[in-house]
Amino acid sequence: MNRTLISETISKVGQEVLLKGWVNTRRDHGQIVFIDLRDRTGIVQIVASPGLVAGLHSEDVIYVTGLVKARPEKLVNLKLATGTVEIDAQKIELVSKATKLPFDLGQETLQLELPTLLDNRALTLRHPKVQAIFRVQEVIIDAFHRALKAKDFMEFQAPSIIPSIPEGGAEVFEVKYFEHKAYLAQSPQLYKSLLVSAFERVFSVNQVFRAEPSVTTSHIAEFTSLDAEMGFIDSWEEVKDMAEYAIKFILDEVQKNCVKELALFDVTIPVVPAKIPHLKMREAQQIIFERTGRDCRHEKDLAPDDEREICKWATEKHHSELVFISHYPTKFRPFYTYPDDADPEYNQGFDLLGRGREWLTGGRRIHDYQILLQHAREWKVNPAKIKTYLQAFEYGMPPLGGFAFGAERITMFVLGLSNIREASMFPRDMERVDVRLRSNNSVTKK
Amino acid sequence: MNRTLISETISKVGQEVLLKGWVNTRRDHGQIVFIDLRDRTGIVQIVASPGLVAGLHSEDVIYVTGLVKARPEKLVNLKLATGTVEIDAQKIELVSKATKLPFDLGQETLQLELPTLLDNRALTLRHPKVQAIFRVQEVIIDAFHRALKAKDFMEFQAPSIIPSIPEGGAEVFEVKYFEHKAYLAQSPQLYKSLLVSAFERVFSVNQVFRAEPSVTTSHIAEFTSLDAEMGFIDSWEEVKDMAEYAIKFILDEVQKNCVKELALFDVTIPVVPAKIPHLKMREAQQIIFERTGRDCRHEKDLAPDDEREICKWATEKHHSELVFISHYPTKFRPFYTYPDDADPEYNQGFDLLGRGREWLTGGRRIHDYQILLQHAREWKVNPAKIKTYLQAFEYGMPPLGGFAFGAERITMFVLGLSNIREASMFPRDMERVDVRLRSNNSVTKK
Repeated sequence: MNRTLISETISKVGQEVLLKGWVNTRRDHGQIVFIDLRDRTGIVQIVASPGLVAGLHSEDVIYVTGLVKARPEKLVNLKLATGTVEIDAQKIELVSKATKLPFDLGQETLQLELPTLLDNRALTLRHPKVQAIFRVQEVIIDAFHRALKAKDFMEFQAPSIIPSIPEGGAEVFEVKYFEHKAYLAQSPQLYKSLLVSAFERVFSVNQVFRAEPSVTTSHIAEFTSLDAEMGFIDSWEEVKDMAEYAIKFILDEVQKNCVKELALFDVTIPVVPAKIPHLKMREAQQIIFERTGRDCRHEKDLAPDDEREICKWATEKHHSELVFISHYPTKFRPFYTYPDDADPEYNQGFDLLGRGREWLTGGRRIHDYQILLQHAREWKVNPAKIKTYLQAFEYGMPPLGGFAFGAERITMFVLGLSNIREASMFPRDMERVDVRLRSNNSVTKK
Repeated sequence: MNRTLISETISKVGQEVLLKGWVNTRRDHGQIVFIDLRDRTGIVQIVASPGLVAGLHSEDVIYVTGLVKARPEKLVNLKLATGTVEIDAQKIELVSKATKLPFDLGQETLQLELPTLLDNRALTLRHPKVQAIFRVQEVIIDAFHRALKAKDFMEFQAPSIIPSIPEGGAEVFEVKYFEHKAYLAQSPQLYKSLLVSAFERVFSVNQVFRAEPSVTTSHIAEFTSLDAEMGFIDSWEEVKDMAEYAIKFILDEVQKNCVKELALFDVTIPVVPAKIPHLKMREAQQIIFERTGRDCRHEKDLAPDDEREICKWATEKHHSELVFISHYPTKFRPFYTYPDDADPEYNQGFDLLGRGREWLTGGRRIHDYQILLQHAREWKVNPAKIKTYLQAFEYGMPPLGGFAFGAERITMFVLGLSNIREASMFPRDMERVDVRLRSNNSVTKK
């Protein structure tokens, strides 16, 4: 008999089916045993005699042959996707026996400390609420693909091993590369800009690496960067508008495809108006000063408190949970950021803030080779170290810009997770690469 | 005026347009100058007076305002996608000046040695025939996504930094990971298998890393691995059939979407029958012996000559340019490969060969925790080093299998390229990370 997926049982009342999955929970009631069976499509209740299920417990892999029966209305448990049917088991085959679990995986929400959640990742990834996080993340990444493809962007695979660290050595992982030193890319920035000279519009979905020397709730050492870059722009606003389009496209897709997942976390996607409001950084600082009396008007950047306040302002004044901030001080942004023509002390870089946090960063880049070279030198970037990148500008580069954001961060912000590690299947940080580094000798201490 | 793309000019005869692109070539004919303008959609001829184009040369970025005119039939150059129209230039704006080129980028096929092609990557990626390689690659990767999504596989992002080298230290890059040693993943194999216990069917598109200590035409140190893994299989043939489906889906998409690109390289996609033929390795060796007299019947693997011969056989006997070979000797494949029940000396791993080369590899994996542990020990794999992976098996893993292949290799084989480096935008090898390692001090010699 062919396998029936659990989600398909609803339409098979009265039929015999073969189901395959994991024992999610087991409840013994004397001469009757209820097994909640889980597969990738949902959970269904199996009704069996004790003899059929002798010795079975959570996470055993079983194949169940049985009859699909409609359940009496009053018994329908709304938490089960397939609550309208149950399976009257005729035969149960044990295919893979699970060791006794270290904690109860059958709870509606896992009540585990973060280290326990991650130490047992192969197990906790089976929990429906944990899985929901990665279903949302998959939708975000897939929507990013489709949004950009629809605008004629070409996907490329950015290299991870890079020859040098153009902007200084902090927070970069060193790789022993044959007889040489190489590094892991912090972002595909230079490659995506370079590629504008060949393909005009490019995007990438790639792992990037940050050797953040601190343990915070919003940083991990390896994450999935969603990057886009476009040429022949008329203004930096064109880049901002493309970023707005991409984020809205993504949020719409999450809204449409993740109804169940959003409900599980009791969250809604951010409210945004037809046009996301925009402020220059100095304007934002003035508003914050007027609203709170806190004078940040001469700071070089917005502090976390400022970001929260300006998000509050955007929500109150513009009914928007997202807000663009642009025109940061030129000298505190990367060498390639385009200085504003009217006021070169500030540049045409921008951030998208939402719910008090930074969602996305982008901006126009310098396309003139000589100005770029001059900036590189002023920023103490050795041109010899970015030869391939500079070559693109040396031979004719159109006006360009782009944006980037982390898939894990967006997932975290949308679902209101308290730690970014929850939004990474296998988070890497100072203390962990799968297993904890300190206590585990599988990673050699230097 | 809004930008018109070059491909759109065909339908705008008689209209004034603004085109933006690069000077592809320039031909001076006294009082008239022809500029071939290139953008991401094609090439069109611009007709201008010498005064309008003074000083312009190849790769300058220009904005051209002009009138779209139909070209006299007899002048239509079939090599130009937009050969039926030309642009009578009224105004030309120089937006970005290119340095004089080190070689002629206007040739139909670049006649460059490989080092020159790669040393000037920012420039050679602009050539239409080089771009065609990456258009095909994009279609291959996108088709892989869609093929697997259509079969309910979930996409995941595989981590690149791994804690240890379970199968020995050769050909793995070491990373300085904070105060520890870590490594770059050679494949997402253990993660994708692990994830079957959570999501049943998963796939990934990820950069992977091989410290191949030799320079060959078919190896690079970083490449894009297309990986899939599935649970609840009834036999290894189910995995083979899924691989066959994926490859056929991909080739069909290339066929449909890359007509121009295939023509540029004067190639066709491999001919395959309704069902790709299949042989066990020992059967293949017997056939080779009978056809050539070369006795490889006791070898542990097929040599390159054998692969070519068996591909010839498949083409002649089955009109198939692809052929599956399975049942390699168990002890020469990885510890997790499933031994055949009838003859455990051979396993249920398989390769897909095509046009004399190895296209894809896959197989059924051991799902029983105790057998897996025992194999790990026999293969000298320390279980403590693959803790996260083993956890998935300890707590109930269904029968599983999967397959993997490199995007660059498939691109190379489909287009008949002579070196895999041509199919990588920025190939990394022993001698190169963007720039050549020996001659460039941007990569520090240890």
